[in-house]
Amino acid sequence: MEDVTNQITEINGAFDILWILIAGVLVFLMQAGFTLVEAGFTRSKSTINIIMKNVMDLCIGSLGFWAIGYTLMYGDSIGSFIGTPSLFFNTEGEMHNLFFQTVFCATAATIISGAVAERTKFSTYLILSLVITVFIYPISGHWVWQGSGWLTNLGFVDFAGSTVVHSVGGWAALVAAYLVGPRIGKYTDGKSNAIPGHNMMYGALGVLILWFGWFGFNGGSELAISGEHAKNVSNVFITTNLAAAAGAIVAMFYTWIKYKKPDVSMTLNGALAGLVGITAGCAAVSNGGALAIGAICGLVVVLAITFIDEKLKIDDPVGAISVHGVCGALGTILVGVFAIDGGLLYGGGFSKIGIQAVGVFAIGAWAITTTFIVLFILKKTLGLRVSEKDETEGLDITEHGMNAYPDFRLNEK
Amino acid sequence: MEDVTNQITEINGAFDILWILIAGVLVFLMQAGFTLVEAGFTRSKSTINIIMKNVMDLCIGSLGFWAIGYTLMYGDSIGSFIGTPSLFFNTEGEMHNLFFQTVFCATAATIISGAVAERTKFSTYLILSLVITVFIYPISGHWVWQGSGWLTNLGFVDFAGSTVVHSVGGWAALVAAYLVGPRIGKYTDGKSNAIPGHNMMYGALGVLILWFGWFGFNGGSELAISGEHAKNVSNVFITTNLAAAAGAIVAMFYTWIKYKKPDVSMTLNGALAGLVGITAGCAAVSNGGALAIGAICGLVVVLAITFIDEKLKIDDPVGAISVHGVCGALGTILVGVFAIDGGLLYGGGFSKIGIQAVGVFAIGAWAITTTFIVLFILKKTLGLRVSEKDETEGLDITEHGMNAYPDFRLNEK
Amino acid sequence: MEDVTNQITEINGAFDILWILIAGVLVFLMQAGFTLVEAGFTRSKSTINIIMKNVMDLCIGSLGFWAIGYTLMYGDSIGSFIGTPSLFFNTEGEMHNLFFQTVFCATAATIISGAVAERTKFSTYLILSLVITVFIYPISGHWVWQGSGWLTNLGFVDFAGSTVVHSVGGWAALVAAYLVGPRIGKYTDGKSNAIPGHNMMYGALGVLILWFGWFGFNGGSELAISGEHAKNVSNVFITTNLAAAAGAIVAMFYTWIKYKKPDVSMTLNGALAGLVGITAGCAAVSNGGALAIGAICGLVVVLAITFIDEKLKIDDPVGAISVHGVCGALGTILVGVFAIDGGLLYGGGFSKIGIQAVGVFAIGAWAITTTFIVLFILKKTLGLRVSEKDETEGLDITEHGMNAYPDFRLNEK
Repeated sequence: MEDVTNQITEINGAFDILWILIAGVLVFLMQAGFTLVEAGFTRSKSTINIIMKNVMDLCIGSLGFWAIGYTLMYGDSIGSFIGTPSLFFNTEGEMHNLFFQTVFCATAATIISGAVAERTKFSTYLILSLVITVFIYPISGHWVWQGSGWLTNLGFVDFAGSTVVHSVGGWAALVAAYLVGPRIGKYTDGKSNAIPGHNMMYGALGVLILWFGWFGFNGGSELAISGEHAKNVSNVFITTNLAAAAGAIVAMFYTWIKYKKPDVSMTLNGALAGLVGITAGCAAVSNGGALAIGAICGLVVVLAITFIDEKLKIDDPVGAISVHGVCGALGTILVGVFAIDGGLLYGGGFSKIGIQAVGVFAIGAWAITTTFIVLFILKKTLGLRVSEKDETEGLDITEHGMNAYPDFRLNEK
Repeated sequence: MEDVTNQITEINGAFDILWILIAGVLVFLMQAGFTLVEAGFTRSKSTINIIMKNVMDLCIGSLGFWAIGYTLMYGDSIGSFIGTPSLFFNTEGEMHNLFFQTVFCATAATIISGAVAERTKFSTYLILSLVITVFIYPISGHWVWQGSGWLTNLGFVDFAGSTVVHSVGGWAALVAAYLVGPRIGKYTDGKSNAIPGHNMMYGALGVLILWFGWFGFNGGSELAISGEHAKNVSNVFITTNLAAAAGAIVAMFYTWIKYKKPDVSMTLNGALAGLVGITAGCAAVSNGGALAIGAICGLVVVLAITFIDEKLKIDDPVGAISVHGVCGALGTILVGVFAIDGGLLYGGGFSKIGIQAVGVFAIGAWAITTTFIVLFILKKTLGLRVSEKDETEGLDITEHGMNAYPDFRLNEK
Repeated sequence: MEDVTNQITEINGAFDILWILIAGVLVFLMQAGFTLVEAGFTRSKSTINIIMKNVMDLCIGSLGFWAIGYTLMYGDSIGSFIGTPSLFFNTEGEMHNLFFQTVFCATAATIISGAVAERTKFSTYLILSLVITVFIYPISGHWVWQGSGWLTNLGFVDFAGSTVVHSVGGWAALVAAYLVGPRIGKYTDGKSNAIPGHNMMYGALGVLILWFGWFGFNGGSELAISGEHAKNVSNVFITTNLAAAAGAIVAMFYTWIKYKKPDVSMTLNGALAGLVGITAGCAAVSNGGALAIGAICGLVVVLAITFIDEKLKIDDPVGAISVHGVCGALGTILVGVFAIDGGLLYGGGFSKIGIQAVGVFAIGAWAITTTFIVLFILKKTLGLRVSEKDETEGLDITEHGMNAYPDFRLNEK
């Protein structure tokens, strides 16, 4: 009898591992999604540079998180602030967790790429990617996901990483886009000029692949599928999907009303905004709550993109700051409103909102401060951006010596 | 002991849910496949519109099927004709089924998109998509898949939806393409002019993604993987794959013989035809039967595309009517021939073919009639198609205010 | 009690089947990856031909491996050399294995496609693909994976196919590229001219999809996930991922140092080289060993591509010989160095390296000889390549009667 109990435990253990591996593979493909979205929403002359940045985020993330990042995040807590580091994580029976967390880490790093596209030095970018992977992301991640971090102790909830992953990437993107400065020609006479992306199909395919991968991102964050977990994961699938759909629809109708035409890039960003927004609360809210969070994020992302572009005059070619930073923060705070257990709408008062806000601000401050320091040093040393001449010619040629589409005739730049 | 039995039941339950979720995720990605195929097979000036239609099919399907469609299809049967509707389906422990059925529903809606590409009003399209999602598809689906629908009672077999999903979409596409009318320049002097698609790689990538997703579509329709189901799902994988391969090969050789060159768009449509054709019978036929069904559909799809294009003069830019309508119906009827249990070739006589034909015709009549009514009303109100001027300029600019490929020089339209 | 034991056995069996099916589906998508990489790394005028070749590899593989290949490989061994053939494999309960092995077989065939791109007759290519599928690949595969093949008896280790799949494809590619000869204009005045690929985003997307699929390729080769297998598969995921990342990083820095710019096509090929290299030993080496194998392959692939291109003057448009042939062989031999159980670095002496080398050379000789004979016959009969005029115009038009991108203006060829 004991033998049977052991066997059943073993079955459920292997079953959970299978799910984590599959979910991780889905998240892995999100790297292709990010690459497609960034390239599609920018000019053809930056395609190769974008490919290199995104592939290197994945490579650096894979090596860096294994080398040190994972234990900084999940090692025994030192003062609820940081994990005990240990080099080259190889604890027997933990490789599925390493894999799943590695692809999450690569996601955080790659968010920045879009915001600094088309003008940033490749070497500088690689160093920033490394620092985020092995330092910035794991430490704030420790606060929430290691189990005894100070934000966990406070009761902060971020199920799959609206804040831990997305807003960390989004705030780092904000600092980076601000420090790097806008692309040549983006602002003239105090006016923001649209610089159209070169392939909307890449954008759409990228978003659909991201949406696809997000079922692994959010569903996999249950970290199990056996027994009752199967039901929880199913619920997460539905909240995730409803929020994405609502975000896209609201963004589409808003642009339709405001600009007279339903806009494709805003619609796609609306879907992403819904996905980012629901990530924190996907296991905590009802289907109706997910719909509301998605819809709110779908509206806010359009407003935020316009505000950052036109008022703050920060050039974020793909809207990464708004999608991941703003909607990541907003979605996390909205858990305090819509959580069935303790949310404002369920009679929980304002305390949950307050705790969520503390986490959002603390992690935002951490990401902004550390990214600022790193980029300040890089600015004084390597430099942040390429020369005017190189930028005008395009990073594909000047940084990588190649043209992404040599057979095709291009319009004048 | 009873405890162990309960645990084993729970394991198998969670295991089945995992499979349904994974299969659903695979089907989800088919939306990207449909988008790529439709855009690739049409002109560059319609790309954004195609993206918007396909993304919205998914969004509307996600919200609409949750809001009402699911219960209309799977609710307690009212007279074997329609499910008892209930708003915002949220039955505990059923979200995996909602997810799987939602992505099926979105597939049905999105089939129409290709047939009406490049000339249909976007607003009109959205309304049609909504009606299919929340009314047309769920009701005929109820007849076959709810368990006590009138076609189920009759013995009609459509395992994964050759008829329930594909031919519903295909017949709606037929009506829509007929009512919307051909693209400007498609027929001149009573002759059909080829309008080449703008990116064959999109077409190929789309078909490979669809084929990939079809393992979830057909394999997931077993709705379980535990115990004996694992073997059944494996069989379905092989029948599905063989039919697709046979369809592509037959279509290729037929065009090679007839037109002297192996044609890529027909070959790709041959694979899809094989997949659509085997969907009804993938769990009912032998490997040899699957090969035969795929081969027949690979031939018929080429003949049907030519017939519809040249004789009926209905402009279906991607061949959706032939692939999904004709081969969906044909594949369903061929279950009556090739089913190991009761098919004509296995001594079952003609009764099974007759029952299959009844289902095919009943659902065809339903889809055609309802779509006709909806589009007739839309024609008299919103209008079905854009102005000549807008169509000539292209829907990307006129409906969405954007160019999908602004960096590239295009040939004269 | 016995009943419970049976149920647990059944659960684990179904669980393993699920994993094999999912892994197979991931490998299936690699066909899209190969298609994208090959098309992206070659000229726009060959896109349709590349699509047709890759889709047909899949179709021919699906039918051919079912018809005869599978039993030639896995049937009861005749003299440890070949399986007992049996037509149209349909052993009850074995369809998951047929599916998984079919997509492996299609991979081996499709490797050759890239090396002979842009000048090979389509009909000739199809025949070669068929012979590899039903004869060359299954027989050498039998030696290693059937269980009582002569290489298995010798102690040869190739967990997921660095040699069985990749180097068989790579050596066949070497012979084919050599016999077909270089593309017009590739070598002038004894100098190798670069012929740039037409879409680097296809290349990048293809590589990311291949990397994604490789988790199924290597992880699925455990052929189980229940119990302890879950841990093993997790380990394989990490070794696979680390080797790919290391390969890409080393290739990038090497080109950065040597050519002053980090090169995108070499970086992407570096990732593939790491993946091919780790495939043999992914379950036998430590994480550090995987890192080393990936790094070595990332360096060697750049050297090999340059050597084959400039010294041997064999025109391999995508680097398939170097990636799959050279790194497949190298990775297999490195198992003798890095295997925790018996590798050189773990005190195992040179015997394991010797056995690995025997397998690599035996299978290399087999692939080279058989491919040579087939192509020699084809050269004397159908002919290997198209006319100069046809090649200059491009295979899309001359072999398939279509232009892949009719809306876009192209540069002079």
